[in-house]
Amino acid sequence: MTPYLLTPGPLTTSARTKESMLRDWGSWDGDFNQITARLREGLLRIVHGEGTHECVPLQGSGTFAVEAAIGTLVPRNGHVLVPVNGAYCQRIAKICKVLGRKLTTFEYAEDAQVRPEDIDRLLAKDPSITHVALVHCETSTGILNPLHEIALVAQKHGKGLIVDAMSSFGALEIDARRTPFDAVIAASGKCLEGVPGIGFVLARREALQASEGNCHSLAMDLYDQWVYMGKTTQWRFTPPTHVVAALDSALTQYFEEGGLAARGGAYQRNCKALVEGMAKLGLRSFLPPEIQAPIIVTFHAPDDPKYEFKQFYNAVKARGYILYPGKLTTVETFRVGCMGQLGERGMEGAVEAVRDVLHAMGIRTQAAEAVL
Amino acid sequence: MTPYLLTPGPLTTSARTKESMLRDWGSWDGDFNQITARLREGLLRIVHGEGTHECVPLQGSGTFAVEAAIGTLVPRNGHVLVPVNGAYCQRIAKICKVLGRKLTTFEYAEDAQVRPEDIDRLLAKDPSITHVALVHCETSTGILNPLHEIALVAQKHGKGLIVDAMSSFGALEIDARRTPFDAVIAASGKCLEGVPGIGFVLARREALQASEGNCHSLAMDLYDQWVYMGKTTQWRFTPPTHVVAALDSALTQYFEEGGLAARGGAYQRNCKALVEGMAKLGLRSFLPPEIQAPIIVTFHAPDDPKYEFKQFYNAVKARGYILYPGKLTTVETFRVGCMGQLGERGMEGAVEAVRDVLHAMGIRTQAAEAVL
Repeated sequence: MTPYLLTPGPLTTSARTKESMLRDWGSWDGDFNQITARLREGLLRIVHGEGTHECVPLQGSGTFAVEAAIGTLVPRNGHVLVPVNGAYCQRIAKICKVLGRKLTTFEYAEDAQVRPEDIDRLLAKDPSITHVALVHCETSTGILNPLHEIALVAQKHGKGLIVDAMSSFGALEIDARRTPFDAVIAASGKCLEGVPGIGFVLARREALQASEGNCHSLAMDLYDQWVYMGKTTQWRFTPPTHVVAALDSALTQYFEEGGLAARGGAYQRNCKALVEGMAKLGLRSFLPPEIQAPIIVTFHAPDDPKYEFKQFYNAVKARGYILYPGKLTTVETFRVGCMGQLGERGMEGAVEAVRDVLHAMGIRTQAAEAVL
Repeated sequence: MTPYLLTPGPLTTSARTKESMLRDWGSWDGDFNQITARLREGLLRIVHGEGTHECVPLQGSGTFAVEAAIGTLVPRNGHVLVPVNGAYCQRIAKICKVLGRKLTTFEYAEDAQVRPEDIDRLLAKDPSITHVALVHCETSTGILNPLHEIALVAQKHGKGLIVDAMSSFGALEIDARRTPFDAVIAASGKCLEGVPGIGFVLARREALQASEGNCHSLAMDLYDQWVYMGKTTQWRFTPPTHVVAALDSALTQYFEEGGLAARGGAYQRNCKALVEGMAKLGLRSFLPPEIQAPIIVTFHAPDDPKYEFKQFYNAVKARGYILYPGKLTTVETFRVGCMGQLGERGMEGAVEAVRDVLHAMGIRTQAAEAVL
């Protein structure tokens, strides 16, 4: 049996999503262009961006779309403020450096949310800043940043906001009618439960219109991609047709199941079952619940010399669940995703697998004696 | 029934290739890393580059990989000579411009091959040129350029050669042991008959080793991608796991079927049946046979006012085959691919569909009276 993926994407997709890839599509053909159009419209609908924003999909991983958004929307003489509380914030900072965009970072501990009042102060202090780039849910820890409040601060100062919503889009609310942003970026293989291979940027139309000639790259130029799609209904360069068809199918299922409220609710339940179940096994979450997004949870590794991640990982995998390594430099952790299809036994099945492995490996946790 | 794709990629893949996408893979997991390793080794084997070259795969379409190769391998103060006899040569020139690499183009008619003696003269005249960028088979017409001869000229002058082999790789011989190159670039959804979504660059190891810090982009930095893969066996950013698995399956089938000789032979037979069959219908090829690659064939549109491409396209599609529009600016043409799975009736089935449509539309061709 294929193990369930408890990872921050790729994740376990539905059989229907995978089966949608059993057909080859011509990338120039009208049938495929209809899929692209439906997809762009559906993605825009999730943020209520119809009429004000544009959906520009892009080949590649989510990072490609983040780089494309920075490169396209920030002018070459722009200046980006990046609050940093995790690895994906750091990646945005790195992108700014490679692209030669002026950069200011503001560092937090990995278990601390970005604070709107800091952004307010930093923007007031340095008027040369043109954009704020924020990670909504930091996949490296699972922390949720206060997007809406930061968006209002950026708007107050007349600055553009670029949001990496990779791990939140589709499950946590982002409403363009009340939360101002220049770009929200996400990808196919995350909360929408498609397969990985494309990213997309939901960009404010005026910001996109003003971005001609900014981009450092031909392939990543979202302005060009948008104009070309508008004219031809096609992608500029060959799209990953099967990935696009899978995302279209996944999105249809998403809306059928109740859209954002249903998806977010399911992940909330998964997250609760996970955190509570693991707590009973003596495995502590890295973040307090009030700043924990219900997408991916970081756990402290058991404080027992018999624990070794790779061995633990392989044993849990043999019981049908694939975990994810930690990404913190100072604390030993591992991560468990709350997304995707989890089968009949749901998250409880995953917690049981972890319990059995701790027992088999003879690993003692804080609460181990009470449980095993 | 899904129509067969007679397009230059995506193309009709085998059922086995598509079925390999019915599983979700963890991108961090060892099972998936083995696929990546096997794929890189197999792709290198096709050009006999083991020990001298490195395979660096990249998310996105083939154009992403071309841009990545130019951006990574050509230093920022480099100078690229691009001989131009089609749209994909022009695209390389455009990439050089966007990336700020110094560029010299040399223009040919679209039905004329690049001539090694021209490259020799141009390199002798301007010693500041550091690289030649050549398209092996120009998808816009189907013309084959003399790669081996041009590679020897570039080597004689001590220049790097970057080859866009998108439409030839795997079907037409490129042998790194006798044809010197710095990079050969291709993609998953072409002659290897995978699904679209990744490209790859087969780079000479020394050229790659010398390329640190050249790249204009984080996501497209092939040096970084290569170093990271070497250290971790993983992709730097989330790979399109299903596309990778499909290419792995397609490559296994490719080797089982006899590798390059068998694939090239099949396409040669397809091409011959196509050109001869269409000639009988009075439809002339744009290129003379001696410079026609057996990958995609450009045909002159019928010289009859009743012909209209979109209508012709839809009627042939209704009969089970998807054609491709022409890409020439001065002559009205359409294109037919020779790649991919063509079903039991093979290329003859496609020619019959075209015959039936010409008849149904009442279109007269040069030889129409003799045939219909």
